[in-house]
Amino acid sequence: MLLKNDIEQIARIVERENVLTGKEELYCYAEDSMNFCGLHVSPDAVIFVETIEQVQKVVRYANSKKIPVVSRGAGTNMVGACTCPKGGIVLNFSRMNKILELNTVDMTMTVQPGAVLGEIKHLAEEEGLFYPPDPSNYKVSTIGGSIAQSSGGAMGFKYGTTKDYILSLKVVLADGTLVKLGKGTIKDAAGYHLNQLIIGSEGTLAVVVEAELKLIPKPQSSRTILAYFNTLEAAAEGVNNIIKKKVFPAAIDFMDKNSICTVEKFYPSGLNLDKEAMLLVVIDGFESSMNFQQQEVFDALNSAGADFVEAAVTEEQKEAIWTARRASFAATAKLAPDVLSDDIIVPRSKISSMVRGCKDICDKYGLMVCMVGHLGDGNIHPQIALNLENEDEFKKYCSAKAEIYELANSLGGTISAEHGIGTEKIAYLTRTIDDEALKYMKKVKELFDPNNILNPDKIFKL
Amino acid sequence: MLLKNDIEQIARIVERENVLTGKEELYCYAEDSMNFCGLHVSPDAVIFVETIEQVQKVVRYANSKKIPVVSRGAGTNMVGACTCPKGGIVLNFSRMNKILELNTVDMTMTVQPGAVLGEIKHLAEEEGLFYPPDPSNYKVSTIGGSIAQSSGGAMGFKYGTTKDYILSLKVVLADGTLVKLGKGTIKDAAGYHLNQLIIGSEGTLAVVVEAELKLIPKPQSSRTILAYFNTLEAAAEGVNNIIKKKVFPAAIDFMDKNSICTVEKFYPSGLNLDKEAMLLVVIDGFESSMNFQQQEVFDALNSAGADFVEAAVTEEQKEAIWTARRASFAATAKLAPDVLSDDIIVPRSKISSMVRGCKDICDKYGLMVCMVGHLGDGNIHPQIALNLENEDEFKKYCSAKAEIYELANSLGGTISAEHGIGTEKIAYLTRTIDDEALKYMKKVKELFDPNNILNPDKIFKL
Repeated sequence: MLLKNDIEQIARIVERENVLTGKEELYCYAEDSMNFCGLHVSPDAVIFVETIEQVQKVVRYANSKKIPVVSRGAGTNMVGACTCPKGGIVLNFSRMNKILELNTVDMTMTVQPGAVLGEIKHLAEEEGLFYPPDPSNYKVSTIGGSIAQSSGGAMGFKYGTTKDYILSLKVVLADGTLVKLGKGTIKDAAGYHLNQLIIGSEGTLAVVVEAELKLIPKPQSSRTILAYFNTLEAAAEGVNNIIKKKVFPAAIDFMDKNSICTVEKFYPSGLNLDKEAMLLVVIDGFESSMNFQQQEVFDALNSAGADFVEAAVTEEQKEAIWTARRASFAATAKLAPDVLSDDIIVPRSKISSMVRGCKDICDKYGLMVCMVGHLGDGNIHPQIALNLENEDEFKKYCSAKAEIYELANSLGGTISAEHGIGTEKIAYLTRTIDDEALKYMKKVKELFDPNNILNPDKIFKL
Repeated sequence: MLLKNDIEQIARIVERENVLTGKEELYCYAEDSMNFCGLHVSPDAVIFVETIEQVQKVVRYANSKKIPVVSRGAGTNMVGACTCPKGGIVLNFSRMNKILELNTVDMTMTVQPGAVLGEIKHLAEEEGLFYPPDPSNYKVSTIGGSIAQSSGGAMGFKYGTTKDYILSLKVVLADGTLVKLGKGTIKDAAGYHLNQLIIGSEGTLAVVVEAELKLIPKPQSSRTILAYFNTLEAAAEGVNNIIKKKVFPAAIDFMDKNSICTVEKFYPSGLNLDKEAMLLVVIDGFESSMNFQQQEVFDALNSAGADFVEAAVTEEQKEAIWTARRASFAATAKLAPDVLSDDIIVPRSKISSMVRGCKDICDKYGLMVCMVGHLGDGNIHPQIALNLENEDEFKKYCSAKAEIYELANSLGGTISAEHGIGTEKIAYLTRTIDDEALKYMKKVKELFDPNNILNPDKIFKL
């Protein structure tokens, strides 16, 4: 609990108008996009920071008083990673959102943590460059959140995730020290990869205050190929056939029947309601290769028994398909008062077992699940519609979730591919990673943050 | 210094015949490919390990007696990373070299640390798959060494380096505990990226005993475009023009005039001796895109004033060009009793300043330097021919090296892109990375290896 004196001290650093302390104002920060975290605790203050020096001073002060510090961008994460179970301070980065430099020769972009991914991607593309990570909330989510959660997206199959596009980071440590990790060169073998340790650490090791991003040349052309299948197994075989043909799609996404029907119900998009699975395969590269790639993918999917295969070539056609795919979460949210989107990953060869098993588990508990995901990666997002205030339903959800995670583990997968652990998955982490690895994660946390002020009780509890 | 009893204890773990203790045998392990490290200390014993359990037992024993443990694959690193300044044990992984699994559906390969990169690449390619990292010694170097040194290669420009292709690691910690880091899935956001911390840590944090590699579909086609330029600046402009045209070459390598002439002198390859710079641009992708890409690259290079541009299309043509490029080190080695290959990187926009500056520094000290490198990445390998036993020449070399590193730092670069720090660059690390970052690297080292037994005095001294 912050005292009045603490607020006064902090207000001297950032000006009083940049500190929120009203009960209703703070209430908005008790949650993030994950609307269930088992807790609902407001922070004691929200600080709008605008400079690195301000972050340093606030963090240094918080450390001296052992006040928790939770960094927050757009709050779009799905695991309760920027909630405040111990109260404390929220550092709101929404005003520290500038693109500081776009270097088209070096193909780099230097950004503040509050910079919105959509703007980063757009500015790069205006210069013919490409920042590939594309979490589905990219139009509003921030790069700071992407770095914290190691976020991915549909393009991860070919282009990798956030961790592959961070050249250097400026971070503020728990004691307020500013450190640059990495020199910003394309390759760097001078010492340990501490920046890779920070990526995905959910703000528990340091506060990211600046990042230098790697950009690549934007592919000249892309198409989205849409296909339907009567069985999950056939869809999975279609994906394997694509790989066998040495086509490397930018994305291989999928929707299951529930997801297709739910989207169609609330956002009519002309989807085919009779099929078990829909694939969206993005091919990209030089225009002169497009027809060849398309034919190879068509052949691959048809030989797996695809029921319908079609290519979207124009921007409008592509946008229509992807809008339907991205509407899945919003559509599922209309089925019940709440929707919880999960994030599991298995080796691609296990994908149909995972999808089918997940459906069976939800059926057993009478839960409505719509599944979408990045099939190329083996990454599934089960979206479960329910009423969290219905105690019986909530219990069933908890049981189903635990069983889904166990299934992912038993298939050689893990409980988070691109959302992180946050508060929501803490209880399950010990069952998915090596005990000794967890022990060392905790030791690393204690090393970087001895007073446990940086986003405490996220990923694991000390 | 190991006692007779230590040797006996270790011989019980691995059988006496797998322990070398003869003076002449040990002498061979006092050096690695970096033939100057300021020291020439033989280990006390070399242990050929064949199983994870053996590694655990040897490391556990060594830890209990505070005996240094140096892991070694082919010993091809260029920075003295597997020398033994404190004596101790060398773990020789050359017999723990199996490809344990190649999964063509999941596009993964599980390997032991002594597996040779050339074999890994070859087996993947037989299945139409691709393991891109290609350090120039890949025909003999091991994956364990690649992981230790975070190695790169020509293909890094488009495909990244070793760190981008490691899905999971099994490592033995200093106390002998076996830990798996990462689940082996394509994406993984379950806790800190400890495996990324191990990659590039040069065996100082843990001993890698197994790795799961990510493979990608092998590009259908590739060509190497050869071009000569009258100035470095024109070559750099040619590279920028390629980027502007949104062509993303797999590799953009270069040789300077000294390097061209030296190769031609010892390995006649028909190179053009009159030019300041030669570029080798590898384009790859679908066959149907090749002519378009080639024309774009030709146009880009010609508009920068290239003097000669030609494409190698057949395997024989490509092999001839790359054999000449790779012969650079061997050719330079014929100029003098010794050759030292360095590894610096700057933002690509600074590449001509770096190359020219490096040449000026070497000229000033009367040193013969042949420069090759990965121009797309901004990564230069100055190869300096000299006689290390000539004290005056050695002093000049040391001065030149320090100035070259200072220049790289002043241009926003760093002193190692893909070779690592080892023993050779320890003295210069503090000038290239943040003091606070180095402090935390040391703390991380102490956390993982409290007795400082794992490859001590590499990267930094505690």
